[in-house]
Amino acid sequence: MRYQAIVSYDGSNYAGYQIQPDRVTIQAVIERALEKMHQGRPVKITASGRTDAGVHAHRQVFHFDSELVIPESNWKKALNSLLPDDIVILKVKETTPSFHARYDAIKKTYQYVILNSDDPSPFEANYSTYMPIKLDISLINQACADLIGEHDFTAFCAANSYVKGDKIRTIYEANCTKDKDKLILSFTGNGFLYNMVRIIVGTLIEIGQGKRPVTDIQRIISSKDRSQAGKTAPAQGLYLNHVEYEAEK
Amino acid sequence: MRYQAIVSYDGSNYAGYQIQPDRVTIQAVIERALEKMHQGRPVKITASGRTDAGVHAHRQVFHFDSELVIPESNWKKALNSLLPDDIVILKVKETTPSFHARYDAIKKTYQYVILNSDDPSPFEANYSTYMPIKLDISLINQACADLIGEHDFTAFCAANSYVKGDKIRTIYEANCTKDKDKLILSFTGNGFLYNMVRIIVGTLIEIGQGKRPVTDIQRIISSKDRSQAGKTAPAQGLYLNHVEYEAEK
Repeated sequence: MRYQAIVSYDGSNYAGYQIQPDRVTIQAVIERALEKMHQGRPVKITASGRTDAGVHAHRQVFHFDSELVIPESNWKKALNSLLPDDIVILKVKETTPSFHARYDAIKKTYQYVILNSDDPSPFEANYSTYMPIKLDISLINQACADLIGEHDFTAFCAANSYVKGDKIRTIYEANCTKDKDKLILSFTGNGFLYNMVRIIVGTLIEIGQGKRPVTDIQRIISSKDRSQAGKTAPAQGLYLNHVEYEAEK
Repeated sequence: MRYQAIVSYDGSNYAGYQIQPDRVTIQAVIERALEKMHQGRPVKITASGRTDAGVHAHRQVFHFDSELVIPESNWKKALNSLLPDDIVILKVKETTPSFHARYDAIKKTYQYVILNSDDPSPFEANYSTYMPIKLDISLINQACADLIGEHDFTAFCAANSYVKGDKIRTIYEANCTKDKDKLILSFTGNGFLYNMVRIIVGTLIEIGQGKRPVTDIQRIISSKDRSQAGKTAPAQGLYLNHVEYEAEK
Protein backbone atom coordinates (compact mmCIF):
# COMPACT_ATOMS: atom_id res chain seq x y z
CA MET A 1 0.00 0.00 0.00
CA ARG A 2 1.28 3.51 -0.81
CA TYR A 3 0.79 6.27 1.75
CA GLN A 4 0.93 10.04 1.38
CA ALA A 5 2.05 11.93 4.48
CA ILE A 6 2.21 15.59 5.46
CA VAL A 7 4.98 16.62 7.85
CA SER A 8 5.86 19.89 9.59
CA TYR A 9 9.41 20.35 10.82
CA ASP A 10 11.70 22.81 12.51
CA GLY A 11 14.88 22.54 10.45
CA SER A 12 17.09 24.28 13.05
CA ASN A 13 18.77 21.15 14.35
CA TYR A 14 19.06 19.24 11.07
CA ALA A 15 21.54 19.11 8.22
CA GLY A 16 18.63 19.58 5.82
CA TYR A 17 15.96 17.22 4.56
CA GLN A 18 17.89 14.74 2.48
CA ILE A 19 19.85 11.79 3.85
CA GLN A 20 23.60 12.36 4.05
CA PRO A 21 26.19 10.04 5.57
CA ASP A 22 26.90 10.78 9.25
CA ARG A 23 24.50 13.73 9.40
CA VAL A 24 21.18 14.00 11.17
CA THR A 25 18.60 14.85 8.53
CA ILE A 26 14.80 15.04 8.50
CA GLN A 27 14.56 12.14 6.05
CA ALA A 28 16.88 9.95 8.15
CA VAL A 29 14.89 10.57 11.33
CA ILE A 30 11.54 9.82 9.68
CA GLU A 31 12.91 6.70 7.99
CA ARG A 32 14.30 5.50 11.31
CA ALA A 33 10.86 5.92 12.91
CA LEU A 34 9.26 3.97 10.04
CA GLU A 35 11.92 1.29 10.34
CA LYS A 36 11.04 0.86 14.03
CA MET A 37 7.40 0.41 13.07
CA HIS A 38 8.44 -2.23 10.52
CA GLN A 39 10.45 -4.46 12.87
CA GLY A 40 13.76 -3.15 11.56
CA ARG A 41 12.99 -3.38 7.85
CA PRO A 42 14.14 -0.19 6.06
CA VAL A 43 11.37 1.99 4.59
CA LYS A 44 12.40 4.70 2.11
CA ILE A 45 10.43 7.94 1.96
CA THR A 46 10.26 10.26 -1.05
CA ALA A 47 9.47 13.93 -0.43
CA SER A 48 8.23 16.65 -2.78
CA GLY A 49 11.77 17.99 -2.69
CA ARG A 50 14.65 18.56 -0.35
CA THR A 51 15.07 21.53 1.98
CA ASP A 52 18.47 22.86 3.02
CA ALA A 53 20.01 22.91 6.49
CA GLY A 54 18.09 25.32 8.73
CA VAL A 55 15.11 25.55 6.35
CA HIS A 56 11.72 24.72 7.86
CA ALA A 57 8.52 23.18 6.54
CA HIS A 58 4.92 23.79 7.50
CA ARG A 59 3.45 21.12 5.23
CA GLN A 60 6.06 19.06 3.40
CA VAL A 61 4.66 16.02 1.58
CA PHE A 62 6.26 12.59 1.21
CA HIS A 63 5.18 9.11 0.17
CA PHE A 64 6.22 5.64 1.25
CA ASP A 65 5.13 2.05 0.77
CA SER A 66 4.19 -0.32 3.54
CA GLU A 67 2.57 -3.72 3.89
CA LEU A 68 1.67 -3.06 7.54
CA VAL A 69 -2.00 -3.46 8.32
CA ILE A 70 -2.75 -0.42 10.46
CA PRO A 71 -5.93 1.69 10.45
CA GLU A 72 -5.20 4.91 8.54
CA SER A 73 -5.88 7.05 11.62
CA ASN A 74 -3.25 5.22 13.70
CA TRP A 75 -0.32 5.88 11.37
CA LYS A 76 -0.01 9.51 12.46
CA LYS A 77 -0.16 8.69 16.17
CA ALA A 78 2.32 5.82 15.86
CA LEU A 79 4.83 7.86 13.85
CA ASN A 80 4.60 10.93 16.11
CA SER A 81 5.23 8.81 19.17
CA LEU A 82 8.55 7.75 17.58
CA LEU A 83 9.57 11.19 16.29
CA PRO A 84 11.23 14.06 18.19
CA ASP A 85 9.14 17.15 19.02
CA ASP A 86 10.61 19.18 16.15
CA ILE A 87 9.19 16.84 13.48
CA VAL A 88 5.40 16.46 13.52
CA ILE A 89 3.36 14.27 11.18
CA LEU A 90 0.10 16.11 10.43
CA LYS A 91 -1.54 13.50 8.22
CA VAL A 92 -1.04 10.04 6.75
CA LYS A 93 -3.50 8.73 4.16
CA GLU A 94 -3.63 5.86 1.74
CA THR A 95 -3.05 6.95 -1.83
CA THR A 96 -2.87 5.37 -5.27
CA PRO A 97 0.11 3.10 -5.99
CA SER A 98 1.26 5.51 -8.70
CA PHE A 99 1.31 8.63 -6.51
CA HIS A 100 4.75 10.27 -6.42
CA ALA A 101 5.36 13.14 -4.00
CA ARG A 102 7.97 14.79 -6.23
CA TYR A 103 6.83 14.09 -9.80
CA ASP A 104 3.15 14.72 -9.15
CA ALA A 105 3.55 18.04 -7.33
CA ILE A 106 2.01 20.79 -9.43
CA LYS A 107 2.56 23.81 -7.16
CA LYS A 108 4.76 24.66 -4.22
CA THR A 109 4.53 27.65 -1.93
CA TYR A 110 7.51 28.95 0.00
CA GLN A 111 7.51 31.72 2.57
CA TYR A 112 10.42 33.80 3.72
CA VAL A 113 10.22 35.63 7.05
CA ILE A 114 12.19 38.79 7.80
CA LEU A 115 12.23 40.22 11.32
CA ASN A 116 12.18 43.93 10.50
CA SER A 117 12.43 45.30 14.05
CA ASP A 118 14.88 47.61 15.83
CA ASP A 119 16.12 44.81 18.12
CA PRO A 120 16.67 41.16 17.31
CA SER A 121 14.56 38.65 19.24
CA PRO A 122 16.16 35.72 21.08
CA PHE A 123 13.10 33.66 20.09
CA GLU A 124 13.51 34.34 16.38
CA ALA A 125 17.18 33.54 15.79
CA ASN A 126 16.35 30.25 14.00
CA TYR A 127 12.99 31.26 12.58
CA SER A 128 13.49 34.48 10.64
CA THR A 129 16.22 36.67 9.25
CA TYR A 130 16.83 39.78 11.31
CA MET A 131 17.11 42.94 9.24
CA PRO A 132 16.94 46.20 11.17
CA ILE A 133 16.80 48.24 7.96
CA LYS A 134 14.13 50.32 6.28
CA LEU A 135 12.38 48.19 3.66
CA ASP A 136 9.72 49.62 1.35
CA ILE A 137 7.07 46.92 0.98
CA SER A 138 5.38 48.64 -1.95
CA LEU A 139 8.67 48.55 -3.91
CA ILE A 140 9.08 44.87 -3.04
CA ASN A 141 5.54 44.13 -4.19
CA GLN A 142 6.04 46.01 -7.45
CA ALA A 143 9.18 43.95 -8.11
CA CYS A 144 7.35 40.73 -7.13
CA ALA A 145 4.91 41.32 -9.99
CA ASP A 146 7.78 40.95 -12.47
CA LEU A 147 8.52 37.46 -11.16
CA ILE A 148 5.07 36.19 -12.08
CA GLY A 149 4.80 34.09 -15.23
CA GLU A 150 7.00 31.62 -17.07
CA HIS A 151 10.63 32.67 -17.13
CA ASP A 152 14.10 31.22 -17.48
CA PHE A 153 15.31 31.68 -13.88
CA THR A 154 18.98 30.83 -14.59
CA ALA A 155 20.02 34.14 -12.98
CA PHE A 156 18.24 33.11 -9.75
CA CYS A 157 19.79 29.64 -9.51
CA ALA A 158 22.88 28.87 -7.42
CA ALA A 159 25.80 28.93 -9.87
CA ASN A 160 27.12 25.60 -8.58
CA SER A 161 23.81 23.78 -8.85
CA TYR A 162 23.33 20.69 -10.91
CA VAL A 163 19.87 20.89 -12.46
CA LYS A 164 18.61 18.33 -14.91
CA GLY A 165 16.85 19.93 -17.86
CA ASP A 166 16.03 23.59 -18.34
CA LYS A 167 15.73 26.37 -15.79
CA ILE A 168 12.34 27.54 -16.98
CA ARG A 169 9.83 27.75 -14.15
CA THR A 170 6.46 29.41 -13.71
CA ILE A 171 5.70 31.61 -10.73
CA TYR A 172 1.98 32.01 -10.09
CA GLU A 173 2.06 34.25 -7.05
CA ALA A 174 4.67 36.43 -5.38
CA ASN A 175 4.03 39.06 -2.74
CA CYS A 176 5.16 40.63 0.49
CA THR A 177 2.89 41.24 3.49
CA LYS A 178 3.52 42.71 6.92
CA ASP A 179 2.50 41.04 10.21
CA LYS A 180 3.50 43.23 13.17
CA ASP A 181 7.31 43.49 12.91
CA LYS A 182 7.65 40.68 10.38
CA LEU A 183 7.70 40.85 6.61
CA ILE A 184 6.48 37.67 4.96
CA LEU A 185 7.46 37.07 1.35
CA SER A 186 5.40 34.37 -0.30
CA PHE A 187 6.09 32.58 -3.59
CA THR A 188 3.98 29.99 -5.38
CA GLY A 189 5.34 28.27 -8.46
CA ASN A 190 5.38 25.01 -10.39
CA GLY A 191 8.91 24.40 -9.18
CA PHE A 192 11.93 26.21 -7.80
CA LEU A 193 15.61 25.89 -8.72
CA TYR A 194 18.34 25.36 -6.13
CA ASN A 195 18.46 28.42 -3.82
CA MET A 196 16.00 30.22 -6.12
CA VAL A 197 13.74 31.55 -3.36
CA ARG A 198 16.68 32.73 -1.26
CA ILE A 199 18.31 34.50 -4.21
CA ILE A 200 15.00 36.13 -5.16
CA VAL A 201 14.57 37.28 -1.54
CA GLY A 202 18.14 38.63 -1.40
CA THR A 203 17.42 40.63 -4.56
CA LEU A 204 14.02 41.89 -3.39
CA ILE A 205 15.61 43.09 -0.13
CA GLU A 206 18.04 45.25 -2.11
CA ILE A 207 15.10 46.62 -4.11
CA GLY A 208 13.19 47.31 -0.87
CA GLN A 209 16.20 49.23 0.42
CA GLY A 210 16.36 51.30 -2.76
CA LYS A 211 19.76 49.86 -3.66
CA ARG A 212 18.42 48.53 -6.96
CA PRO A 213 15.77 49.96 -9.29
CA VAL A 214 12.30 48.48 -8.83
CA THR A 215 12.45 47.27 -12.44
CA ASP A 216 15.62 45.25 -11.87
CA ILE A 217 13.95 41.81 -11.78
CA GLN A 218 13.18 41.93 -15.51
CA ARG A 219 16.75 42.89 -16.36
CA ILE A 220 18.20 40.15 -14.14
CA ILE A 221 15.91 37.47 -15.61
CA SER A 222 16.94 38.50 -19.14
CA SER A 223 20.64 38.42 -18.24
CA LYS A 224 20.52 34.71 -17.29
CA ASP A 225 23.55 35.62 -15.17
CA ARG A 226 23.63 34.69 -11.47
CA SER A 227 26.05 37.52 -10.74
CA GLN A 228 23.40 40.09 -11.73
CA ALA A 229 21.05 38.98 -8.91
CA GLY A 230 21.38 39.79 -5.21
CA LYS A 231 22.90 37.82 -2.38
CA THR A 232 21.44 34.50 -1.27
CA ALA A 233 19.31 35.27 1.80
CA PRO A 234 20.05 33.13 4.91
CA ALA A 235 18.39 29.71 5.28
CA GLN A 236 16.67 30.20 8.63
CA GLY A 237 13.96 32.56 7.31
CA LEU A 238 12.78 30.03 4.70
CA TYR A 239 9.71 27.79 5.04
CA LEU A 240 8.31 25.29 2.58
CA ASN A 241 4.72 26.26 3.23
CA HIS A 242 2.74 23.68 1.28
CA VAL A 243 2.72 21.49 -1.82
CA GLU A 244 -0.26 21.05 -4.12
CA TYR A 245 -1.23 18.00 -6.18
CA GLU A 246 -3.96 17.47 -8.69
CA ALA A 247 -7.21 16.68 -6.98
CA GLU A 248 -7.74 12.98 -6.27
CA LYS A 249 -4.14 12.19 -7.03
CA MET B 1 28.67 53.58 38.11
CA ARG B 2 25.58 51.40 38.47
CA TYR B 3 23.76 50.28 35.33
CA GLN B 4 20.26 48.91 34.83
CA ALA B 5 19.85 46.53 31.90
CA ILE B 6 16.87 44.87 30.21
CA VAL B 7 17.46 41.45 28.67
CA SER B 8 15.29 39.10 26.62
CA TYR B 9 16.22 35.45 26.50
CA ASP B 10 15.15 32.11 25.13
CA GLY B 11 15.61 29.78 28.10
CA SER B 12 15.45 26.57 26.03
CA ASN B 13 19.16 25.85 26.10
CA TYR B 14 19.92 26.99 29.65
CA ALA B 15 19.77 25.45 33.11
CA GLY B 16 17.79 28.49 34.25
CA TYR B 17 18.82 32.03 35.09
CA GLN B 18 20.92 31.62 38.20
CA ILE B 19 24.56 30.57 38.26
CA GLN B 20 25.12 26.92 39.15
CA PRO B 21 28.41 25.04 39.11
CA ASP B 22 29.13 23.29 35.80
CA ARG B 23 25.84 24.37 34.20
CA VAL B 24 25.27 26.90 31.45
CA THR B 25 22.94 29.55 32.85
CA ILE B 26 21.75 32.94 31.60
CA GLN B 27 23.53 34.75 34.44
CA ALA B 28 26.81 32.93 33.78
CA VAL B 29 26.74 33.76 30.07
CA ILE B 30 25.97 37.46 30.68
CA GLU B 31 28.65 37.71 33.39
CA ARG B 32 31.18 36.09 31.06
CA ALA B 33 30.38 38.70 28.40
CA LEU B 34 30.80 41.50 30.96
CA GLU B 35 34.04 39.95 32.16
CA LYS B 36 35.39 40.04 28.60
CA MET B 37 34.51 43.73 28.41
CA HIS B 38 36.35 44.30 31.70
CA GLN B 39 39.67 42.71 30.70
CA GLY B 40 38.96 39.55 32.65
CA ARG B 41 37.77 41.18 35.87
CA PRO B 42 34.61 39.45 37.14
CA VAL B 43 31.41 41.52 37.10
CA LYS B 44 28.44 40.24 39.08
CA ILE B 45 24.91 40.91 37.84
CA THR B 46 21.79 40.94 40.02
CA ALA B 47 18.44 40.22 38.35
CA SER B 48 14.88 40.94 39.49
CA GLY B 49 14.66 37.23 40.24
CA ARG B 50 15.66 33.88 38.88
CA THR B 51 13.83 31.92 36.18
CA ASP B 52 13.87 28.12 36.02
CA ALA B 53 15.36 25.91 33.32
CA GLY B 54 13.39 26.30 30.09
CA VAL B 55 11.61 29.46 31.25
CA HIS B 56 11.92 32.49 28.97
CA ALA B 57 12.04 36.24 29.51
CA HIS B 58 10.82 39.07 27.33
CA ARG B 59 12.11 41.88 29.55
CA GLN B 60 14.10 40.63 32.55
CA VAL B 61 15.90 43.40 34.47
CA PHE B 62 19.32 43.24 36.11
CA HIS B 63 21.86 45.67 37.53
CA PHE B 64 25.64 45.70 37.67
CA ASP B 65 28.44 48.05 38.59
CA SER B 66 31.24 49.10 36.29
CA GLU B 67 34.00 51.68 36.23
CA LEU B 68 34.33 51.43 32.44
CA VAL B 69 33.97 54.73 30.63
CA ILE B 70 31.67 53.84 27.72
CA PRO B 71 28.91 55.99 26.23
CA GLU B 72 25.56 54.63 27.45
CA SER B 73 24.44 53.78 23.91
CA ASN B 74 27.48 51.57 23.29
CA TRP B 75 26.92 49.20 26.20
CA LYS B 76 24.07 47.41 24.48
CA LYS B 77 25.96 46.98 21.23
CA ALA B 78 29.14 45.79 22.97
CA LEU B 79 27.31 43.26 25.13
CA ASN B 80 25.17 41.88 22.31
CA SER B 81 28.27 41.36 20.17
CA LEU B 82 29.60 39.08 22.94
CA LEU B 83 26.34 37.23 23.66
CA PRO B 84 24.78 34.28 21.80
CA ASP B 85 21.69 34.91 19.64
CA ASP B 86 19.32 33.52 22.29
CA ILE B 87 20.20 36.25 24.80
CA VAL B 88 19.54 39.81 23.62
CA ILE B 89 20.23 42.97 25.64
CA LEU B 90 17.45 45.46 24.86
CA LYS B 91 18.65 48.38 26.95
CA VAL B 92 21.47 49.48 29.26
CA LYS B 93 21.16 52.76 31.14
CA GLU B 94 22.92 54.45 33.99
CA THR B 95 20.97 54.37 37.22
CA THR B 96 21.34 55.55 40.80
CA PRO B 97 23.98 53.79 42.95
CA SER B 98 21.21 52.53 45.25
CA PHE B 99 19.09 50.90 42.53
CA HIS B 100 18.57 47.19 43.17
CA ALA B 101 16.92 45.05 40.48
CA ARG B 102 15.42 42.63 43.00
CA TYR B 103 14.58 44.73 46.07
CA ASP B 104 13.23 47.70 44.13
CA ALA B 105 10.90 45.74 41.82
CA ILE B 106 7.30 46.67 42.64
CA LYS B 107 5.45 44.58 40.02
CA LYS B 108 6.22 41.61 37.84
CA THR B 109 4.19 40.24 34.98
CA TYR B 110 4.43 36.63 33.87
CA GLN B 111 2.73 35.06 30.87
CA TYR B 112 2.00 31.42 30.27
CA VAL B 113 1.36 30.21 26.73
CA ILE B 114 -0.74 27.13 25.94
CA LEU B 115 -0.90 25.79 22.40
CA ASN B 116 -4.53 24.72 22.28
CA SER B 117 -4.58 23.19 18.79
CA ASP B 118 -5.43 19.78 17.39
CA ASP B 119 -1.85 19.10 16.33
CA PRO B 120 1.36 20.07 18.10
CA SER B 121 3.70 22.43 16.23
CA PRO B 122 7.38 21.57 15.73
CA PHE B 123 8.10 25.30 16.13
CA GLU B 124 6.41 25.54 19.52
CA ALA B 125 7.94 22.61 21.42
CA ASN B 126 10.13 24.92 23.54
CA TYR B 127 7.84 27.95 23.54
CA SER B 128 4.44 26.81 24.75
CA THR B 129 2.73 23.87 26.39
CA TYR B 130 0.74 21.76 23.97
CA MET B 131 -2.73 20.88 25.23
CA PRO B 132 -5.12 19.44 22.65
CA ILE B 133 -8.03 19.60 25.10
CA LYS B 134 -11.17 21.69 25.31
CA LEU B 135 -10.57 24.62 27.64
CA ASP B 136 -13.32 27.06 28.59
CA ILE B 137 -11.72 30.51 28.68
CA SER B 138 -14.67 32.09 30.45
CA LEU B 139 -14.34 29.60 33.33
CA ILE B 140 -10.60 30.32 33.49
CA ASN B 141 -11.25 34.07 33.59
CA GLN B 142 -13.87 33.70 36.33
CA ALA B 143 -11.36 31.73 38.41
CA CYS B 144 -8.63 34.29 37.66
CA ALA B 145 -10.75 36.95 39.36
CA ASP B 146 -10.42 35.05 42.65
CA LEU B 147 -6.64 35.30 42.49
CA ILE B 148 -6.71 39.10 42.52
CA GLY B 149 -5.90 40.81 45.80
CA GLU B 150 -3.65 40.10 48.77
CA HIS B 151 -3.64 36.44 49.75
CA ASP B 152 -1.50 33.89 51.51
CA PHE B 153 -0.43 31.79 48.51
CA THR B 154 1.10 28.92 50.52
CA ALA B 155 -1.10 26.45 48.62
CA PHE B 156 0.40 27.68 45.32
CA CYS B 157 4.02 27.44 46.40
CA ALA B 158 6.22 24.42 45.65
CA ALA B 159 6.16 22.34 48.84
CA ASN B 160 9.94 21.98 48.84
CA SER B 161 10.65 25.70 48.44
CA TYR B 162 12.68 27.70 50.89
CA VAL B 163 11.07 31.11 51.16
CA LYS B 164 12.24 33.73 53.59
CA GLY B 165 9.36 35.43 55.37
CA ASP B 166 5.68 34.99 54.68
CA LYS B 167 3.89 33.71 51.62
CA ILE B 168 1.51 36.64 51.33
CA ARG B 169 1.56 38.20 47.89
CA THR B 170 -0.70 40.59 46.02
CA ILE B 171 -1.93 39.81 42.53
CA TYR B 172 -3.09 42.91 40.65
CA GLU B 173 -4.14 41.35 37.37
CA ALA B 174 -4.87 37.83 36.18
CA ASN B 175 -6.58 36.87 32.95
CA CYS B 176 -6.66 34.56 29.97
CA THR B 177 -6.85 35.71 26.36
CA LYS B 178 -6.92 33.83 23.06
CA ASP B 179 -4.63 34.58 20.11
CA LYS B 180 -5.40 32.23 17.21
CA ASP B 181 -4.68 28.73 18.60
CA LYS B 182 -2.86 30.01 21.67
CA LEU B 183 -4.22 30.76 25.12
CA ILE B 184 -2.18 33.36 26.98
CA LEU B 185 -2.54 33.51 30.73
CA SER B 186 -1.18 36.71 32.22
CA PHE B 187 -0.42 37.47 35.88
CA THR B 188 0.79 40.72 37.44
CA GLY B 189 1.73 40.79 41.10
CA ASN B 190 4.07 42.34 43.63
CA GLY B 191 5.97 39.07 43.79
CA PHE B 192 5.59 35.37 43.09
CA LEU B 193 6.58 32.37 45.18
CA TYR B 194 8.61 29.47 43.81
CA ASN B 195 6.62 27.75 41.02
CA MET B 196 3.58 29.88 41.94
CA VAL B 197 2.65 30.83 38.37
CA ARG B 198 3.06 27.27 37.11
CA ILE B 199 0.93 25.84 39.95
CA ILE B 200 -1.74 28.50 39.36
CA VAL B 201 -1.73 27.65 35.64
CA GLY B 202 -1.96 23.91 36.35
CA THR B 203 -4.97 24.58 38.56
CA LEU B 204 -6.65 26.95 36.09
CA ILE B 205 -6.27 24.34 33.34
CA GLU B 206 -8.22 21.84 35.44
CA ILE B 207 -10.90 24.48 36.03
CA GLY B 208 -10.99 25.23 32.28
CA GLN B 209 -11.51 21.53 31.62
CA GLY B 210 -14.37 21.41 34.11
CA LYS B 211 -12.44 19.02 36.37
CA ARG B 212 -12.66 21.45 39.28
CA PRO B 213 -15.41 23.90 40.22
CA VAL B 214 -14.87 27.46 39.02
CA THR B 215 -14.89 28.60 42.68
CA ASP B 216 -12.02 26.28 43.64
CA ILE B 217 -9.32 28.98 43.81
CA GLN B 218 -10.84 30.51 46.96
CA ARG B 219 -11.03 27.12 48.65
CA ILE B 220 -7.43 26.25 47.71
CA ILE B 221 -6.09 29.61 48.96
CA SER B 222 -7.89 29.12 52.29
CA SER B 223 -6.52 25.59 52.66
CA LYS B 224 -2.87 26.79 52.59
CA ASP B 225 -2.21 23.22 51.43
CA ARG B 226 -0.15 22.61 48.28
CA SER B 227 -1.83 19.26 47.73
CA GLN B 228 -5.18 21.00 47.19
CA ALA B 229 -3.92 22.88 44.10
CA GLY B 230 -3.37 21.44 40.62
CA LYS B 231 -0.25 20.08 38.96
CA THR B 232 2.72 22.33 38.24
CA ALA B 233 2.45 23.29 34.56
CA PRO B 234 5.59 22.64 32.44
CA ALA B 235 8.35 25.26 32.35
CA GLN B 236 8.52 25.88 28.61
CA GLY B 237 5.25 27.84 28.39
CA LEU B 238 6.36 30.39 30.99
CA TYR B 239 7.69 33.88 30.21
CA LEU B 240 8.79 36.60 32.60
CA ASN B 241 7.15 39.36 30.63
CA HIS B 242 8.34 42.52 32.37
CA VAL B 243 9.32 44.02 35.70
CA GLU B 244 8.18 47.41 36.97
CA TYR B 245 10.01 49.83 39.23
CA GLU B 246 8.94 53.07 40.79
CA ALA B 247 9.31 55.92 38.34
CA GLU B 248 12.76 57.52 38.37
CA LYS B 249 14.24 54.67 40.36
